[in-house]
Amino acid sequence: MIETPYLLFLGDAPDQLAAKVAQGIKDWRPENAVGQFRMPGCKADVGLTDMTLEEGKAAGARTLVIGVANRGGVISQAWKDVLIEALGMGYDLASGLHNLLANEGDLVAASQVHGQTLHDVRVPNVQYPIADGKKRTGKRVLAVGTDCSIGKMYTALALDRAMQEKGMKSTFRATGQTGILITGAGVPLDAVIADFMAGAVEYLTPDNDADHWDIIEGQGSLYHVSYSGVTLALIHGGQPDALIVCHEPTRKTMRGLPEYKLPTIQQVIDLALPLARVANPACEVAGISINTQHLGEQEALDYCAKVEAEMGLPTVDPFRHGAGRLAEALAKL
Amino acid sequence: MIETPYLLFLGDAPDQLAAKVAQGIKDWRPENAVGQFRMPGCKADVGLTDMTLEEGKAAGARTLVIGVANRGGVISQAWKDVLIEALGMGYDLASGLHNLLANEGDLVAASQVHGQTLHDVRVPNVQYPIADGKKRTGKRVLAVGTDCSIGKMYTALALDRAMQEKGMKSTFRATGQTGILITGAGVPLDAVIADFMAGAVEYLTPDNDADHWDIIEGQGSLYHVSYSGVTLALIHGGQPDALIVCHEPTRKTMRGLPEYKLPTIQQVIDLALPLARVANPACEVAGISINTQHLGEQEALDYCAKVEAEMGLPTVDPFRHGAGRLAEALAKL
Repeated sequence: MIETPYLLFLGDAPDQLAAKVAQGIKDWRPENAVGQFRMPGCKADVGLTDMTLEEGKAAGARTLVIGVANRGGVISQAWKDVLIEALGMGYDLASGLHNLLANEGDLVAASQVHGQTLHDVRVPNVQYPIADGKKRTGKRVLAVGTDCSIGKMYTALALDRAMQEKGMKSTFRATGQTGILITGAGVPLDAVIADFMAGAVEYLTPDNDADHWDIIEGQGSLYHVSYSGVTLALIHGGQPDALIVCHEPTRKTMRGLPEYKLPTIQQVIDLALPLARVANPACEVAGISINTQHLGEQEALDYCAKVEAEMGLPTVDPFRHGAGRLAEALAKL
Repeated sequence: MIETPYLLFLGDAPDQLAAKVAQGIKDWRPENAVGQFRMPGCKADVGLTDMTLEEGKAAGARTLVIGVANRGGVISQAWKDVLIEALGMGYDLASGLHNLLANEGDLVAASQVHGQTLHDVRVPNVQYPIADGKKRTGKRVLAVGTDCSIGKMYTALALDRAMQEKGMKSTFRATGQTGILITGAGVPLDAVIADFMAGAVEYLTPDNDADHWDIIEGQGSLYHVSYSGVTLALIHGGQPDALIVCHEPTRKTMRGLPEYKLPTIQQVIDLALPLARVANPACEVAGISINTQHLGEQEALDYCAKVEAEMGLPTVDPFRHGAGRLAEALAKL
């Protein structure tokens, strides 16, 4: 639906985490991105070649993908100048921001003048049902985390890759804008109307073969008071057979909530597992995923070993070391 | 905003619970309703005089309030015939259904022809913020339940009445269409976009006097897989100092989910209290509210006494016996 390849727009990202969308595309579909476009003051770098709009076009880019998220999702005038110029040069635009491209009159006008398309992947384009809680066939695994933006999508994508490599049947189920931009399908769960959240997750993960795994991208955290309701809708709509707990050991406070300390992995399990068993009494924690991006090589291995010994569960950084052991743990369930 | 008095439209309600909206108006603002309008096959009766549209008009009614909820909220053709006739007779319409009056072309046309107003109280008319989790001044109490439609709104309204009678400072904070129709203000939480649910609850319950209580209407249940995400947003956005647990002892399975058994009061506390303490470590369960509508007088008293002895918490049916003891428990916190 969205024409590839992309040029990834990082704008004036205040930090690396803000460029999660661009980083995800680069890590999981690098063949889809010719380079990155950064504005003055940009503090993110996803490791692609820096390009102007002209250079991107010359490299074959068809769509400028807004690869940066802002809390609240405001589209600034500085951004707009670039986006309008891009439309004039024959780029489509794709965005997962809360503020829709389609609601910005100047962008809509420019897209019409130049015959280009605006893609807002955050907009639900389905009338989701209310969840009915009925048991579905097939298996499901959900990533839950100690915080937001901690590696749940990466964990799910890596697990999908590992399961495919082992010849297992699996499908990555995107629930956020990045995952949707990467895979071209999914549910933009944080933009769904409250009453239909769990139903949207049921819709996303329908009946399937008994040995097929839906790998559901997690959102938020039960301990993140801004978004915890979305997390619980995933737990109850997804009726997972297994949870993977995601953690980032250097994070001290919840993202955007400086008054709130990160919970421990055990605290997440203590809340998530009883909640998950409301929808699926057989649910188990299958493993732990550590985001070791801020640790050295040996430090990362040592930390995973320590957590594995403490928790008695397979513990890996799936991005750094592969998710094979998590896939094996699921295969044994 | 909505002109009173009302005629309450019960439509072809399939059971008494479906008429929760009309019953709430009758119980808490009886002076606002001249009577009820029922169609053939209606299985609900809120105990008001049955009236035709003509009789309602003669009794002074200004607005026909749709006092009946359908799962999914469909506006049938049989309903529309009545609603269009009412507009022609000079009624405004008010509704809390998911399907908006404003989206029904024939109703909009009739309202314009006759110069009447369509009120959709379910539509959020505020751009709510994302929750920031900051501690707010003043006290808050939230009703949580073993199920949906179990008496959480009644408990909150009765508690507000009891606190006012004791000279305490309190405000009932509506989070659903019935509460909004009763009080004229509130947040239609189940219609809010997922990411803004907790922020909407923060918006609804701002800083206040240290000795003021916001009494927050609960929604759903942590054990109701269709709506549990909304419940958790109330727990985290409301950052309650106290919870009141609501239960209906004759209910065997979750409303709309015949495969799911009702949890016990203790099971609700075991999940709700740790979740509440994420946002407010001082949160306590202050009391228990039993909906005894299906029990006899002595049976109701015996049941409350039994639960009180088991749980060690004040236990009353606030609608039947008053909420004075719950108000006292809160005053002591």
